[in-house]
Amino acid sequence: MPQQKRVYKFGHDAQGNNVTEGNKDMKDILGGKGAGVAEMSQIGLPVPPGFTISCQTCMDYYHGGNEFPEGVWDDVEAHRRDLEERIGKKLGDPNDPLLVSVRSGAPISMPGMMDTVLNLGLNDVSVQGLIAQTENPRFAWDSYRRFIQMFSNVVMGLDGDLFENALKAKKAERGVKNDTDLTADELEALVPVFKQIFSDNVSAADYPQLVVAGKVEFPQDVDVQLNLAVRAVFGSWGNDRAVLYRKQNKISDDMGTAVNVQCMVFGNKGDTSATGVAFTRNPASGEKEFYGDYLVNAQGEDVVAGIRNTSPITQLKTVPGLEGAGAELEKVFKILEDHYHDMCDIEFTIEQGKLWMLQTRVGKRTAAAALKIAIDMEAEGLIDKKEAVLRVDPAALDQLLHPQFDLNAKYDVLATGLNASPGAAVGGVVFSSADAVKFKEAGKPCVLVRWETNPDDLAGMIAAEGILTSHGGKTSHAAVIARGMGAPCVCGVDVLDIDAEAKTVKVAGTDVILHEGDLISIDGTSGIVVLGAVDLIPATVSGDLATLLEWADEYRQMGVRANADNPEDAELSRGFGAEGIGLCRTEHMFLGERKQIIQNYILTADSAVKERALQDLLKVQTEDFYGMFKAMDGMPVIVRLLDPPLHEFLDDPRALEVEITRLEVSGEASTEVITEKRALLTQIDSMVEANPMLGLRGVRLAIVHPELAAMQVRAIATAAARLIKEGLKPQPEIMIPLVSVVPELETLRAESTAVLTEVAAAEGVELDIAIGTMIELPRAAVKSADIAKQADFFSFGTNDLTQTTFGFSRDDVEAKFIPTYLDRKLLPYNPFETIDDGVADLVRMGVEGGHKGNPDITCGVCGEHGGDPDSVKTFYGIGLDYVSCSPYRVPVARLAAAQASIENPRH
Amino acid sequence: MPQQKRVYKFGHDAQGNNVTEGNKDMKDILGGKGAGVAEMSQIGLPVPPGFTISCQTCMDYYHGGNEFPEGVWDDVEAHRRDLEERIGKKLGDPNDPLLVSVRSGAPISMPGMMDTVLNLGLNDVSVQGLIAQTENPRFAWDSYRRFIQMFSNVVMGLDGDLFENALKAKKAERGVKNDTDLTADELEALVPVFKQIFSDNVSAADYPQLVVAGKVEFPQDVDVQLNLAVRAVFGSWGNDRAVLYRKQNKISDDMGTAVNVQCMVFGNKGDTSATGVAFTRNPASGEKEFYGDYLVNAQGEDVVAGIRNTSPITQLKTVPGLEGAGAELEKVFKILEDHYHDMCDIEFTIEQGKLWMLQTRVGKRTAAAALKIAIDMEAEGLIDKKEAVLRVDPAALDQLLHPQFDLNAKYDVLATGLNASPGAAVGGVVFSSADAVKFKEAGKPCVLVRWETNPDDLAGMIAAEGILTSHGGKTSHAAVIARGMGAPCVCGVDVLDIDAEAKTVKVAGTDVILHEGDLISIDGTSGIVVLGAVDLIPATVSGDLATLLEWADEYRQMGVRANADNPEDAELSRGFGAEGIGLCRTEHMFLGERKQIIQNYILTADSAVKERALQDLLKVQTEDFYGMFKAMDGMPVIVRLLDPPLHEFLDDPRALEVEITRLEVSGEASTEVITEKRALLTQIDSMVEANPMLGLRGVRLAIVHPELAAMQVRAIATAAARLIKEGLKPQPEIMIPLVSVVPELETLRAESTAVLTEVAAAEGVELDIAIGTMIELPRAAVKSADIAKQADFFSFGTNDLTQTTFGFSRDDVEAKFIPTYLDRKLLPYNPFETIDDGVADLVRMGVEGGHKGNPDITCGVCGEHGGDPDSVKTFYGIGLDYVSCSPYRVPVARLAAAQASIENPRH
Repeated sequence: MPQQKRVYKFGHDAQGNNVTEGNKDMKDILGGKGAGVAEMSQIGLPVPPGFTISCQTCMDYYHGGNEFPEGVWDDVEAHRRDLEERIGKKLGDPNDPLLVSVRSGAPISMPGMMDTVLNLGLNDVSVQGLIAQTENPRFAWDSYRRFIQMFSNVVMGLDGDLFENALKAKKAERGVKNDTDLTADELEALVPVFKQIFSDNVSAADYPQLVVAGKVEFPQDVDVQLNLAVRAVFGSWGNDRAVLYRKQNKISDDMGTAVNVQCMVFGNKGDTSATGVAFTRNPASGEKEFYGDYLVNAQGEDVVAGIRNTSPITQLKTVPGLEGAGAELEKVFKILEDHYHDMCDIEFTIEQGKLWMLQTRVGKRTAAAALKIAIDMEAEGLIDKKEAVLRVDPAALDQLLHPQFDLNAKYDVLATGLNASPGAAVGGVVFSSADAVKFKEAGKPCVLVRWETNPDDLAGMIAAEGILTSHGGKTSHAAVIARGMGAPCVCGVDVLDIDAEAKTVKVAGTDVILHEGDLISIDGTSGIVVLGAVDLIPATVSGDLATLLEWADEYRQMGVRANADNPEDAELSRGFGAEGIGLCRTEHMFLGERKQIIQNYILTADSAVKERALQDLLKVQTEDFYGMFKAMDGMPVIVRLLDPPLHEFLDDPRALEVEITRLEVSGEASTEVITEKRALLTQIDSMVEANPMLGLRGVRLAIVHPELAAMQVRAIATAAARLIKEGLKPQPEIMIPLVSVVPELETLRAESTAVLTEVAAAEGVELDIAIGTMIELPRAAVKSADIAKQADFFSFGTNDLTQTTFGFSRDDVEAKFIPTYLDRKLLPYNPFETIDDGVADLVRMGVEGGHKGNPDITCGVCGEHGGDPDSVKTFYGIGLDYVSCSPYRVPVARLAAAQASIENPRH
Repeated sequence: MPQQKRVYKFGHDAQGNNVTEGNKDMKDILGGKGAGVAEMSQIGLPVPPGFTISCQTCMDYYHGGNEFPEGVWDDVEAHRRDLEERIGKKLGDPNDPLLVSVRSGAPISMPGMMDTVLNLGLNDVSVQGLIAQTENPRFAWDSYRRFIQMFSNVVMGLDGDLFENALKAKKAERGVKNDTDLTADELEALVPVFKQIFSDNVSAADYPQLVVAGKVEFPQDVDVQLNLAVRAVFGSWGNDRAVLYRKQNKISDDMGTAVNVQCMVFGNKGDTSATGVAFTRNPASGEKEFYGDYLVNAQGEDVVAGIRNTSPITQLKTVPGLEGAGAELEKVFKILEDHYHDMCDIEFTIEQGKLWMLQTRVGKRTAAAALKIAIDMEAEGLIDKKEAVLRVDPAALDQLLHPQFDLNAKYDVLATGLNASPGAAVGGVVFSSADAVKFKEAGKPCVLVRWETNPDDLAGMIAAEGILTSHGGKTSHAAVIARGMGAPCVCGVDVLDIDAEAKTVKVAGTDVILHEGDLISIDGTSGIVVLGAVDLIPATVSGDLATLLEWADEYRQMGVRANADNPEDAELSRGFGAEGIGLCRTEHMFLGERKQIIQNYILTADSAVKERALQDLLKVQTEDFYGMFKAMDGMPVIVRLLDPPLHEFLDDPRALEVEITRLEVSGEASTEVITEKRALLTQIDSMVEANPMLGLRGVRLAIVHPELAAMQVRAIATAAARLIKEGLKPQPEIMIPLVSVVPELETLRAESTAVLTEVAAAEGVELDIAIGTMIELPRAAVKSADIAKQADFFSFGTNDLTQTTFGFSRDDVEAKFIPTYLDRKLLPYNPFETIDDGVADLVRMGVEGGHKGNPDITCGVCGEHGGDPDSVKTFYGIGLDYVSCSPYRVPVARLAAAQASIENPRH
């Protein structure tokens, strides 16, 4: 294997010829910054020359126990000498010293996460050369003391405050307020103080190369300075904040960072010097305007640190002495956009009137900006529609589809929790579902505050503007239901101590106690809770977003449906572009007063009472389905037969036993009452399961209680028949959940077909209703070829499939150990949010087997993964016909599916 | 496709030439009986001629809506005419009528399950021919009335009692007691009575072909008789008892039955006629002796019906007039054994001194007989060792390995339940684990009677002779643990109403009330419960069984290990031939006083207390492992790190809350006590899981509580080091349970290796301890290639794998709906007993991936399926290196594995 190239030049040589070896497409090797300066060099923009050490070298250094691979340091030194020749100056030169910056730059931008050292090359001798060259002793001494400070902090890990305190002491001694008030002499006097701090705080054992005459000294040898600085940048790849950032942003730990060694230019050489950061367009709104800030007579870190007030970049070309550079900068903006076909983020410095470009990259932007820029650039002819569709991150669309805190609003954060369902809400605190409904009826907006929600809270969750819980994760009941209904939700705010009976919330660590009706604001996009009302701005689903989604649909080759359980959600999702309902969960229709009916059905032994309950259910279910099919007229609506274990509709046996015990011991109730309650308890206990997730539910219920399934099928058929007679085109489909073996589906198919035939004959209409199954158990995926022979369609229930494939009970593991697993990188991401590789393998097996068993089968997914962009792309790759997701996720899925098609079209 | 052959001749033609078209290898076509008579015809034994209609025809008839496929009936009629020519008689002939039997005969014997019609061909005319030919009017009229009775009952489905009552009335009218006391005239007079019963009870609408002059008549047309009889036999394939029998015996519903139409011979033509059934050896003991019974002057059904006392077959050759036939029969026995190389079961009839063979097949036998016959026949040179090994059903070995009720004992069954763990036990009733231990200490045998057992009952289960529960299925806690320890267990005896506090059991449907100490006997092989003591006979594991297993081991190519958690079980399994311990469940070591230690560990927040608890556990665990490794010296012992959720070691929170409520309301306890208990409850509640099977257990525990796993690894290493220093060769292996993703195993491997290295250094020994994982989650099976890179071995935990693959919580589904599923054939068998096809697919994927990721990997199985013969054969086919099962199942697995190798050797 030939020796790999480790070090790449950029910029010009002594003759002004471009000697750059890289370009913008070499981010994996040069990192983002290295690729950016290389590309700018290649297109003739003014870039201070330098060289880049590759990312791979960082990983080799890391895996080699923090040692450079053989020959690498020699290579770096050779490039340092080459750079000295190109620029005609030498590091440490007593007459005309070269100074360099040493900066990190990973393939994916990790702003502020890693280390930078400026002014490297200064020592007790070369500082004199800098004075001679600049005729500016104050600048030279200030640069030197800054270098010692930065080197000590960044490279040696010393506490920055040690130096700040010495600086403060000097200012106090001189009775001045600003750094700039210190004279050259005073700054010169700080240098030995800073060097002493260095000597006192660096361990001789750790740095034997710094020991001179038995004492640690600040390194005067520029080679040692450079060596330690490069090591520090490589080492910063593994620092805590970088690791955390990568975890949060799903960035691989295996990329490493490049190191850029670049000639220093100085924005702090007086009033014709300046430095700034800018975007070629507004990254917040997307408006086509130059955007950014500069500081006259300053170095880069001053802009970022925010110690001095910056000026808007648009003013630069009006500043005396900076007009030329300012005008040139605007030209550079245009050159970069034309070159990159995208909005760019840049860093620049003007040194005594001359513009130098230090960095460029494609700029980060808000979802709104991404959208506007994509639409505008298409209109400007910079990009085509395909490219515009690719430019918007589907995951960010969520931000555009819900009300948000006004960006201009000022508020104090009371508490933070999990950003469980996006959007913001303002309302009075309520503590129960019933109170939420009361507030709603009284026209008062409210926020439902609960320890955790349960199915009984549904009415209140619908009535409330938003939901706030002290327990539960991003996939807790509250979170899942809130996302499903598009309601803002903040979960797991553990500082809330809720007393629902007393109707108070104490906020730990504060003396705030909230009572019913007290106004709060929550932002489910960020997880923030605020005391009082914050101004909100509403969602917009029109304009640019509508245009972009129209374009997306031109390329999209996979369908998008919605999961909805009532006509309101169905209509909402249709408005968001859903092409059908992929999952209608009928158990959500058994709440409120219907719960009593189903309890009657379950608990009675009297067949007449049971039959009456079934007839009651038939009546309300027929109305439910009538509304759904009407709302989705002409589009498929997949109705899932009853799925949860029946005991979920009954009282909690533990609470009941406690109540009975209380009544018994206190003597408050008669023997008859107690006997009756005990009988109920016995009955409930006989149904309770050790692991209800793996118990009597789904198709198993329909096998054991065939009359329940038959009732639902009859309701579907009757509703469809009614609509057909009204001239509409209902397209219901019947889905059998939790099938593991073929005969289950065979049985339900036969029983359902019999009911459909009977209703069709009785109503005198033709009913063509597909019957399919959820594939949500590993066995079903493995045996899909057999199952497909009985199915018109498959819908992959990836929530349950993830549970059984991993052996993860979502209710238990998301709070108990998935956070630990994510922290410790045992999992790359939460498999309930983004489809896991192993689960995806089972989906793939299921689809392949499904087509083998039934070439005409339709395959979709209706787990929550259907609204996750990464998962949508995986499903597209597997060959699914559609994804189905909660209504508010429909635009997200449309865009993600379109991007998948553009990246890899189906033929 | 050429017309398939539907009808096959057997026996001789008019010239005495053999015209048989089938042979013994054509069971699938001819059924067992058809193949038997064909084979006997081929080897020259005296068989009444006839023909066989194929099994496929039965299935075609069945699927064709109970109609014969086109041309079939013509074919049958042609064969009927051919048979008439061969025998020189005609059905229904008024002078010399042919009579035939019409019998079912499926490929797999289903004794007594299906239908037979004798004497077909008699009518009002041919009965006179029979009289003329036999000169025996009484025989002729008796045959005719029997035919009407049998035809009415078997073919037409009339109640047999209608005819029996008429017969009784006739006897009463004549003042006689026995059928044989009725004269020819009296029998003749019964015929019109029987025919009238027929007319009165058969529906004209169902049988229009039987209507003569507006009234149903008994068919005089012999074609109609034959047609209806053949239909009845085909129809009997689907009768309830046949369906049930097939389900219980795992026989496919798709085989169908053949129909044999055969010339009648008569064993009831006087004292030189006889009929009997016999075995060529003793089917109960296997002794080499003729075994069976005969009746002089009788028809076949009289022997089976048991109305007259039969005589032993060995006496036959001494009976005057039957000596010749008796001697010939003994020659036939030898011919058959030499020909079949097996013990045969035969039916014969002697008609006026001439022997006729009616049926033969390889005879059913008890496990003991199968064993003895296999060993004897090998010694006799009839079969070789391979064949001997194949001759014994591994599933039946269980019967030989446990005490049993003495076969000669007389007892009344008190109740029956599930035969959950084989063997019989006698003892006094006890109601708690503690009482069982007390009985044991007092030297009194006892049977532990519980609603259902739980891990706390373990001490009592060990102390008791057997376990009896009123709830739970064959894989309930009681059943699984009992099988594991080889203790007899009867489960789910739902007539038991147990009051453990009052120490009484009421037996519903009886007035029996059992009190503590009352003697009962249980038979876990049959599920029988008896009041009082039944004599038992002990298990034998030597002699023939030892020989057979030695032979099995010569052919066996897959290892057999045992699941054992203590030195006693380890030694036991070694005695049964286990080649190592495939699964040592360490949670079984945390019972009794250790439970308190682990509770301390779990509940304390004080790190010193926690550390002390860990040290205590380390000490006892080291002793545990020392004992295990010593017992299995020189053999691998796979230790599984702690698997169950920690809350299993804590109190039940519901019971605790009820107790607290009682104390609070009654005021019986101080506020301090209640506060303390409430704190405990809160702590337990924080650990409780909605679906513990899918929660914080297995490797997840080790990730969250690394110190627990480290303690166990340290104990394993320390125990091994001690034994090495004592000169032994311990071979512990460490198994990480419930791995779903690679980094889990990677982490545990690294942490365990660190501990092993440390102990090895401290103890000054070399420790070479393999580290592997259980594959018990679908994700692990799918991603096995990746996981194998971190594993020295895989052990497939098929219990858990079945749970997650099906989404079946064993605790819940075995009682709640698996019985329904089995009844309704939604499942072919219980997948927790015999490995399911879909689960096996995942095991196959796991093994294939495992070898891809690590070519040196060892793969075994340690679920309960490892002791199920069918599953053992499946695992052999998948290519596993070994199976591991409970000690008492080791011989079963050895034999099953040997048979798998003989049937399909590995190269």
